[in-house]
Amino acid sequence: MDVGFIGLGRMGHNMARNLCKAGHPVRVYNRTRDKALALQQNGATVVDSIAAACQADAVMTMVSDDQALEAIVFGAEGILKSLRTGAIHVSSSTISVALAERLTQAHEAARQSFVSAPVFGRPEAAEAAKLFVVAAGQEALLQQCQPLFDAIGQRSFKLGDRPSKANLVKLSGNFLLAAMLESLGEAFALIRKGGVDPQAYLELLTSTLFNAPVYKTYGAMIADEAYEPAGFTVALGLKDIRLALTAAEGHSVPMPVASLVRDHFIEAVAYGGQDKDWASLAGICARNAGL
Amino acid sequence: MDVGFIGLGRMGHNMARNLCKAGHPVRVYNRTRDKALALQQNGATVVDSIAAACQADAVMTMVSDDQALEAIVFGAEGILKSLRTGAIHVSSSTISVALAERLTQAHEAARQSFVSAPVFGRPEAAEAAKLFVVAAGQEALLQQCQPLFDAIGQRSFKLGDRPSKANLVKLSGNFLLAAMLESLGEAFALIRKGGVDPQAYLELLTSTLFNAPVYKTYGAMIADEAYEPAGFTVALGLKDIRLALTAAEGHSVPMPVASLVRDHFIEAVAYGGQDKDWASLAGICARNAGL
Amino acid sequence: MDVGFIGLGRMGHNMARNLCKAGHPVRVYNRTRDKALALQQNGATVVDSIAAACQADAVMTMVSDDQALEAIVFGAEGILKSLRTGAIHVSSSTISVALAERLTQAHEAARQSFVSAPVFGRPEAAEAAKLFVVAAGQEALLQQCQPLFDAIGQRSFKLGDRPSKANLVKLSGNFLLAAMLESLGEAFALIRKGGVDPQAYLELLTSTLFNAPVYKTYGAMIADEAYEPAGFTVALGLKDIRLALTAAEGHSVPMPVASLVRDHFIEAVAYGGQDKDWASLAGICARNAGL
Amino acid sequence: MDVGFIGLGRMGHNMARNLCKAGHPVRVYNRTRDKALALQQNGATVVDSIAAACQADAVMTMVSDDQALEAIVFGAEGILKSLRTGAIHVSSSTISVALAERLTQAHEAARQSFVSAPVFGRPEAAEAAKLFVVAAGQEALLQQCQPLFDAIGQRSFKLGDRPSKANLVKLSGNFLLAAMLESLGEAFALIRKGGVDPQAYLELLTSTLFNAPVYKTYGAMIADEAYEPAGFTVALGLKDIRLALTAAEGHSVPMPVASLVRDHFIEAVAYGGQDKDWASLAGICARNAGL
Repeated sequence: MDVGFIGLGRMGHNMARNLCKAGHPVRVYNRTRDKALALQQNGATVVDSIAAACQADAVMTMVSDDQALEAIVFGAEGILKSLRTGAIHVSSSTISVALAERLTQAHEAARQSFVSAPVFGRPEAAEAAKLFVVAAGQEALLQQCQPLFDAIGQRSFKLGDRPSKANLVKLSGNFLLAAMLESLGEAFALIRKGGVDPQAYLELLTSTLFNAPVYKTYGAMIADEAYEPAGFTVALGLKDIRLALTAAEGHSVPMPVASLVRDHFIEAVAYGGQDKDWASLAGICARNAGL
Repeated sequence: MDVGFIGLGRMGHNMARNLCKAGHPVRVYNRTRDKALALQQNGATVVDSIAAACQADAVMTMVSDDQALEAIVFGAEGILKSLRTGAIHVSSSTISVALAERLTQAHEAARQSFVSAPVFGRPEAAEAAKLFVVAAGQEALLQQCQPLFDAIGQRSFKLGDRPSKANLVKLSGNFLLAAMLESLGEAFALIRKGGVDPQAYLELLTSTLFNAPVYKTYGAMIADEAYEPAGFTVALGLKDIRLALTAAEGHSVPMPVASLVRDHFIEAVAYGGQDKDWASLAGICARNAGL
Repeated sequence: MDVGFIGLGRMGHNMARNLCKAGHPVRVYNRTRDKALALQQNGATVVDSIAAACQADAVMTMVSDDQALEAIVFGAEGILKSLRTGAIHVSSSTISVALAERLTQAHEAARQSFVSAPVFGRPEAAEAAKLFVVAAGQEALLQQCQPLFDAIGQRSFKLGDRPSKANLVKLSGNFLLAAMLESLGEAFALIRKGGVDPQAYLELLTSTLFNAPVYKTYGAMIADEAYEPAGFTVALGLKDIRLALTAAEGHSVPMPVASLVRDHFIEAVAYGGQDKDWASLAGICARNAGL
Repeated sequence: MDVGFIGLGRMGHNMARNLCKAGHPVRVYNRTRDKALALQQNGATVVDSIAAACQADAVMTMVSDDQALEAIVFGAEGILKSLRTGAIHVSSSTISVALAERLTQAHEAARQSFVSAPVFGRPEAAEAAKLFVVAAGQEALLQQCQPLFDAIGQRSFKLGDRPSKANLVKLSGNFLLAAMLESLGEAFALIRKGGVDPQAYLELLTSTLFNAPVYKTYGAMIADEAYEPAGFTVALGLKDIRLALTAAEGHSVPMPVASLVRDHFIEAVAYGGQDKDWASLAGICARNAGL
């Protein structure tokens, strides 16, 4: 499948490369061209405009937030203007439910197709093509996109016709991760002040009740108090919790743990921690305990 | 190892039976004798008093709360009066850190030994000898007790000399479970109001980020909204969170998620839900969202 | 001072009438003309467009939210296009800090003046010209507007050159009121379940520690559980808390009580309570206590 | 009325002196005798034992917590053993609802009388005989005690037959004060980071919506960030919130603001602030905002 790819940050770069590796012809575009050039060795065609990236069966976008995606889609030479009738915009960014709804309508009005396919996984997982793809959109479109999902991820999940459902699920998943970080932060603050060895505690937790990779990965960062370099920053974590809370308010769902996590992310930012890994939420818990 | 066992609720019964199965001579005592009799077929000797249960190298206790254990230990014919010099009291109940400290001192003053060995696992895990044992106490004592731990659990962890550390870790673990229940409750309320199928969502969560048994077990209860019969009740969950918060206050550790979980457990009790499974915390989240 | 007035809801109607009473020539405009006609008896000139209302030395706006004010200001025939050079836009609506900043810049670019002058007080206070006016903007402009403030309020406060500071203070004040409602809600739930008479409790509170009118007004609603008709709705309260939280995030200030109040407002909405008085926050506290 | 007075801290000293001034013969007792001697000039009789203080029609107690009162009442030479049949124990300490219940029963069993009469007001109010007395107990007893209440306070409130209701109300009042401190702390952090002058903000708040003395007194401490010397300490505030939460749990009432305040008091203690004024709760809000 001929595919364009826009947004070559740490995640996007790895995803685009895996699309190349899987044999798809990929036209890559990035605002700063350097990042695109690195993919030439993988067989990607570097293009100089969004419009050029859109000369394909599908264009995949992976950018940092709503604002970035809005600029790419609704801009003067944007996707909406450039994509041919029937072609698919596959959005993998973590964006708001509201923007997903708006994109669905805008693409439909333009006789284009839209699929939401946000992913779970940190950059290392993206590199190893081990992402989990959470997809929603019309069934026929999802089937067309399956080869793309297979190229970037270890498994994909279909959540029905309405693209925004995938975004809601993605946001809820990031909320659950942040809630885990906060909870672990509180638990580690407690046992550390109680004189228990954090590494022994981590070993106990992750080999008994919580033997999931996320607990191991993040638990190790927390036990080591090593929050740099960031795989996923506090600033992005805060953005996603904000989007989750906005979506929740739209559905009239109180989410007190999300509210609390938001407050702690803001506290982290107040102390200049916006670029640390979001696991540093646990550092806020430690700090508030006087550690 | 000759062992007494006091407290034959769902957990204790299974633990005592596994001690029998492992070949230990076990003297079982329960306030209501019926529960003890059921263990005769496993080779247990049913005794009629705490004092009689204490005629052993070690006596293991598994009761519901501080008050129950205090009565058994400090009562007129209690363990403290009955245990011989050098014998070990192994406490597996989920009790307060403060009581563990007090027991440590009281047994030492009485020239007896004390080991804290609370366990993680629901009754089914206790039945299958698959508990995780969290043990703390003098190293020599822990070694002596190892055969007991092996009989009831799949693995044991040693947390150092001071028995109360095991209790602190146990309480922190139950806090983490309750935090998970609350977080899942909020996430499920969100996606349900957003029109996502709860079963598909559960499958997605537990086969990607959160593929730990606790997420599967509790996630299924939450997706099914099936909170009865209880494996572990709201009332017990509230008790444990209270103990965690008290221990945390003792160490000057704020635990806002624990505070929030406590508030939701209290709300559950206000609606008569004290005997439901503590996973019904998620039901409170659903209710507050108008579901 | 020749003044236009746009937005004749319960608050705006009373404010415009008091401007008339004070002898100012007032041109009133409302989307639904009926509400404007009622002011003719007070000497107001009813006009048919925003542009017509802007044929004055100053135009005052009192609408429900950001969106409404944006439409009025930035619309095709809006204030920005209609106000003459040097004339003043006095914004009394409770709007976001961000919109106040944007209006400051837009009016400056159009060589017009902008003053923020949100007010504290319920409709009855507006009727009695007993509002408190919180004003910010250039000192010379504030002096020009003083007769307007005197006509609608019992006292005005100047908060400096930057208009948005008045909006921040207004939002913080509404937060404090909501926090008071939530706190009273929890306290009343407690004493009611403890068997204390709510009216006796109210009398005690408001004649001792909390003898401020807001405690008396809202305390009576809470003691009586009478939340309809609304003086200020849950929907508007939720909007203001949202704006306060957004402003706070902009300044990296965690506001956990605001977060909690937001969650309870959302819970109220989930149960269909958006049109009740925001004092019904206390009803949510009662409900969560099983009352 | 012949009265004993036990507990001569800052509050008790002032209360006992006002009893003397009102012409009551007062026998004063304090663990450290020095504090008692200072009252001789006011006509008090200094006694050397609790028993001696109990040789009166009523004995009033004003100590720091449950533990202190339990020691005084239930001790070997305590009030319960010393008070004559029919004499009244008037407890003004801020104690738990549970202890008030226990005292009611114990005194009844000893054929003595018990009245709960906690007070609102800081030491300066105690000195000026301007306390508010919150009394509960049998009506006849309350009438007998009225002269005592009149001597120490500006007004007293009767809350019915059951003494513990007065304690519940006292705890709820301290909760409302702490909630106010927390809310003001968040609001001040917001406006300070927004560049608004704290003194101007305080003037605005306390001359408009919140013109109650508590807002003025505490608001000034917060605007000045002056939390020492303490009129009422963080440690005592934490104790009272703990008692309020325990009472609320007993009645199955979730109190999320109380939970949050408790977490912030604990954070204050974690940073060594237990002896600062409890208004320093606002300092925690400021600190968490990076101020």
